[in-house]
Amino acid sequence: MDKIYEQTLLFDFYGELLTEKQREICRMLLQEDLSLGEISDELGISRQGVSDAVHRALKALDNMEQKLHMCERFLEISGHIDQMQQMLQAEASKHELEGQLLKMKDSIKIRS
Amino acid sequence: MDKIYEQTLLFDFYGELLTEKQREICRMLLQEDLSLGEISDELGISRQGVSDAVHRALKALDNMEQKLHMCERFLEISGHIDQMQQMLQAEASKHELEGQLLKMKDSIKIRS
Repeated sequence: MDKIYEQTLLFDFYGELLTEKQREICRMLLQEDLSLGEISDELGISRQGVSDAVHRALKALDNMEQKLHMCERFLEISGHIDQMQQMLQAEASKHELEGQLLKMKDSIKIRS
Repeated sequence: MDKIYEQTLLFDFYGELLTEKQREICRMLLQEDLSLGEISDELGISRQGVSDAVHRALKALDNMEQKLHMCERFLEISGHIDQMQQMLQAEASKHELEGQLLKMKDSIKIRS
Protein backbone atom coordinates (compact mmCIF):
# COMPACT_ATOMS: atom_id res chain seq x y z
CA MET A 1 0.00 0.00 0.00
CA ASP A 2 1.21 3.53 -0.77
CA LYS A 3 2.92 4.96 2.33
CA ILE A 4 1.08 8.29 2.40
CA TYR A 5 -2.26 6.56 1.81
CA GLU A 6 -1.52 4.15 4.65
CA GLN A 7 -0.54 6.96 7.01
CA THR A 8 -3.66 8.91 6.09
CA LEU A 9 -5.82 5.86 6.72
CA LEU A 10 -4.23 5.29 10.13
CA PHE A 11 -4.69 8.97 10.95
CA ASP A 12 -8.36 8.75 9.98
CA PHE A 13 -8.83 5.76 12.26
CA TYR A 14 -6.79 6.68 15.29
CA GLY A 15 -6.07 10.41 14.98
CA GLU A 16 -8.48 11.22 17.79
CA LEU A 17 -6.22 9.38 20.22
CA LEU A 18 -3.21 11.60 19.40
CA THR A 19 -2.46 14.76 21.36
CA GLU A 20 -3.96 17.99 20.02
CA LYS A 21 -0.54 19.14 18.79
CA GLN A 22 0.28 15.83 17.06
CA ARG A 23 -3.13 15.86 15.41
CA GLU A 24 -2.63 19.39 14.12
CA ILE A 25 0.76 18.54 12.62
CA CYS A 26 -0.55 15.31 11.04
CA ARG A 27 -3.49 17.19 9.57
CA MET A 28 -1.16 19.73 7.98
CA LEU A 29 1.17 17.02 6.66
CA LEU A 30 -1.35 14.43 5.47
CA GLN A 31 -4.48 16.38 4.64
CA GLU A 32 -3.17 19.80 3.64
CA ASP A 33 -0.08 18.24 2.07
CA LEU A 34 2.30 20.83 3.58
CA SER A 35 6.06 20.20 3.76
CA LEU A 36 7.92 19.99 7.07
CA GLY A 37 9.40 23.44 6.32
CA GLU A 38 5.97 24.94 5.69
CA ILE A 39 4.60 23.43 8.92
CA SER A 40 7.64 24.77 10.75
CA ASP A 41 6.96 28.30 9.44
CA GLU A 42 3.25 28.05 10.13
CA LEU A 43 3.60 26.90 13.74
CA GLY A 44 6.77 28.82 14.57
CA ILE A 45 8.68 25.74 15.73
CA SER A 46 11.95 24.41 14.32
CA ARG A 47 11.95 22.09 11.34
CA GLN A 48 13.63 19.49 13.55
CA GLY A 49 10.85 19.92 16.12
CA VAL A 50 8.22 19.30 13.44
CA SER A 51 10.14 16.30 12.14
CA ASP A 52 10.39 14.78 15.65
CA ALA A 53 6.69 15.38 16.32
CA VAL A 54 5.70 13.78 12.99
CA HIS A 55 7.92 10.80 13.72
CA ARG A 56 6.38 10.30 17.17
CA ALA A 57 2.83 10.74 15.91
CA LEU A 58 3.22 8.27 13.02
CA LYS A 59 4.85 5.78 15.37
CA ALA A 60 1.95 6.15 17.82
CA LEU A 61 -0.56 5.53 14.99
CA ASP A 62 1.40 2.48 13.87
CA ASN A 63 1.43 1.13 17.41
CA MET A 64 -2.33 1.49 17.71
CA GLU A 65 -2.84 -0.45 14.49
CA GLN A 66 -0.41 -3.14 15.67
CA LYS A 67 -2.54 -3.52 18.78
CA LEU A 68 -6.10 -3.04 17.48
CA HIS A 69 -5.94 -3.99 13.75
CA MET A 70 -9.03 -1.86 13.03
CA CYS A 71 -7.68 -0.52 9.77
CA GLU A 72 -6.78 -4.00 8.54
CA ARG A 73 -10.23 -5.30 9.45
CA PHE A 74 -12.08 -2.45 7.77
CA LEU A 75 -10.07 -2.98 4.59
CA GLU A 76 -10.91 -6.69 4.76
CA ILE A 77 -14.64 -5.98 5.10
CA SER A 78 -14.41 -3.41 2.33
CA GLY A 79 -12.84 -6.05 0.08
CA HIS A 80 -15.66 -8.49 0.89
CA ILE A 81 -18.27 -5.88 0.02
CA ASP A 82 -16.59 -5.14 -3.33
CA GLN A 83 -16.48 -8.84 -4.06
CA MET A 84 -20.17 -9.19 -3.20
CA GLN A 85 -21.01 -6.37 -5.59
CA GLN A 86 -19.15 -8.17 -8.35
CA MET A 87 -20.94 -11.40 -7.50
CA LEU A 88 -24.31 -9.67 -7.73
CA GLN A 89 -23.34 -8.20 -11.09
CA ALA A 90 -22.36 -11.67 -12.25
CA GLU A 91 -25.76 -13.07 -11.13
CA ALA A 92 -24.24 -15.34 -8.48
CA SER A 93 -26.55 -17.89 -6.86
CA LYS A 94 -28.22 -17.35 -3.50
CA HIS A 95 -25.97 -20.07 -2.10
CA GLU A 96 -22.81 -18.28 -3.26
CA LEU A 97 -24.03 -14.97 -1.87
CA GLU A 98 -24.76 -16.58 1.49
CA GLY A 99 -21.22 -17.97 1.54
CA GLN A 100 -19.85 -14.50 0.92
CA LEU A 101 -21.96 -13.08 3.76
CA LEU A 102 -20.52 -15.68 6.13
CA LYS A 103 -17.02 -14.51 5.20
CA MET A 104 -18.07 -10.95 5.98
CA LYS A 105 -19.54 -12.02 9.28
CA ASP A 106 -16.28 -13.71 10.13
CA SER A 107 -14.35 -10.49 9.43
CA ILE A 108 -16.31 -8.47 11.93
CA LYS A 109 -16.28 -11.11 14.64
CA ILE A 110 -14.81 -9.89 17.91
CA ARG A 111 -11.41 -11.52 18.29
CA SER A 112 -10.55 -11.48 21.96
CA MET B 1 -27.53 -2.74 25.57
CA ASP B 2 -26.77 -4.81 28.67
CA LYS B 3 -24.04 -3.05 30.69
CA ILE B 4 -21.76 -6.08 31.15
CA TYR B 5 -22.11 -7.01 27.47
CA GLU B 6 -21.26 -3.44 26.49
CA GLN B 7 -18.20 -3.36 28.75
CA THR B 8 -17.04 -6.73 27.42
CA LEU B 9 -17.42 -5.50 23.86
CA LEU B 10 -15.42 -2.35 24.58
CA PHE B 11 -12.77 -4.44 26.30
CA ASP B 12 -12.57 -6.73 23.26
CA PHE B 13 -12.09 -3.74 20.99
CA TYR B 14 -9.78 -1.52 22.99
CA GLY B 15 -8.37 -3.73 25.74
CA GLU B 16 -4.96 -3.81 24.09
CA LEU B 17 -4.59 -0.08 24.71
CA LEU B 18 -5.03 -0.45 28.48
CA THR B 19 -2.08 -0.95 30.81
CA GLU B 20 -1.09 -4.54 31.56
CA LYS B 21 -2.53 -4.26 35.08
CA GLN B 22 -5.84 -2.76 33.92
CA ARG B 23 -6.13 -5.45 31.29
CA GLU B 24 -5.54 -8.19 33.83
CA ILE B 25 -8.20 -6.82 36.18
CA CYS B 26 -10.72 -6.35 33.35
CA ARG B 27 -10.10 -9.88 32.14
CA MET B 28 -10.80 -11.26 35.62
CA LEU B 29 -13.91 -9.13 36.02
CA LEU B 30 -15.44 -9.43 32.54
CA GLN B 31 -14.20 -12.73 31.19
CA GLU B 32 -13.66 -14.84 34.32
CA ASP B 33 -16.64 -13.20 36.00
CA LEU B 34 -14.82 -12.78 39.34
CA SER B 35 -16.11 -10.38 42.02
CA LEU B 36 -14.08 -7.37 43.19
CA GLY B 37 -13.39 -9.27 46.43
CA GLU B 38 -12.12 -12.33 44.56
CA ILE B 39 -9.87 -10.18 42.37
CA SER B 40 -8.58 -8.43 45.49
CA ASP B 41 -7.69 -11.81 47.09
CA GLU B 42 -6.16 -13.11 43.89
CA LEU B 43 -3.92 -10.08 43.27
CA GLY B 44 -3.20 -9.22 46.89
CA ILE B 45 -4.38 -5.64 46.59
CA SER B 46 -7.16 -3.95 48.55
CA ARG B 47 -10.75 -4.20 47.41
CA GLN B 48 -10.76 -0.42 47.11
CA GLY B 49 -7.64 -0.60 44.94
CA VAL B 50 -9.35 -3.07 42.61
CA SER B 51 -12.49 -0.94 42.52
CA ASP B 52 -10.49 2.18 41.60
CA ALA B 53 -8.55 0.32 38.90
CA VAL B 54 -11.77 -1.08 37.40
CA HIS B 55 -13.33 2.35 37.42
CA ARG B 56 -10.35 3.92 35.66
CA ALA B 57 -10.10 1.10 33.10
CA LEU B 58 -13.79 1.20 32.18
CA LYS B 59 -13.63 4.98 31.89
CA ALA B 60 -10.60 4.70 29.59
CA LEU B 61 -12.45 2.18 27.39
CA ASP B 62 -15.49 4.47 27.28
CA ASN B 63 -13.31 7.41 26.28
CA MET B 64 -11.76 5.44 23.43
CA GLU B 65 -15.20 4.56 22.08
CA GLN B 66 -16.33 8.19 22.42
CA LYS B 67 -13.36 9.15 20.27
CA LEU B 68 -13.12 6.28 17.75
CA HIS B 69 -16.67 4.80 17.57
CA MET B 70 -15.26 1.47 16.36
CA CYS B 71 -17.63 -0.60 18.43
CA GLU B 72 -20.64 1.35 17.21
CA ARG B 73 -19.53 0.97 13.61
CA PHE B 74 -18.90 -2.77 13.87
CA LEU B 75 -22.35 -3.26 15.40
CA GLU B 76 -23.83 -1.22 12.56
CA ILE B 77 -22.09 -3.35 9.93
CA SER B 78 -23.11 -6.49 11.77
CA GLY B 79 -26.74 -5.33 11.64
CA HIS B 80 -26.47 -4.72 7.90
CA ILE B 81 -25.07 -8.21 7.36
CA ASP B 82 -27.91 -9.79 9.38
CA GLN B 83 -30.41 -7.80 7.34
CA MET B 84 -28.78 -8.94 4.11
CA GLN B 85 -29.04 -12.57 5.23
CA GLN B 86 -32.75 -12.08 5.86
CA MET B 87 -33.15 -10.42 2.47
CA LEU B 88 -31.45 -13.37 0.76
CA GLN B 89 -33.72 -15.77 2.62
CA ALA B 90 -36.71 -13.74 1.46
CA GLU B 91 -35.50 -13.93 -2.17
CA ALA B 92 -34.94 -10.17 -2.44
CA SER B 93 -34.23 -8.78 -5.89
CA LYS B 94 -30.73 -8.00 -7.16
CA HIS B 95 -31.65 -4.32 -7.01
CA GLU B 96 -32.64 -4.54 -3.34
CA LEU B 97 -29.47 -6.45 -2.48
CA GLU B 98 -27.34 -3.83 -4.22
CA GLY B 99 -29.06 -1.12 -2.18
CA GLN B 100 -28.23 -3.01 1.00
CA LEU B 101 -24.57 -3.32 -0.06
CA LEU B 102 -24.40 0.44 -0.57
CA LYS B 103 -25.60 0.93 3.02
CA MET B 104 -22.87 -1.42 4.19
CA LYS B 105 -20.29 0.45 2.16
CA ASP B 106 -21.43 3.68 3.76
CA SER B 107 -20.94 2.19 7.24
CA ILE B 108 -17.31 1.36 6.65
CA LYS B 109 -16.48 4.64 4.95
CA ILE B 110 -13.62 6.50 6.61
CA ARG B 111 -15.13 9.49 8.41
CA SER B 112 -12.39 12.03 8.82
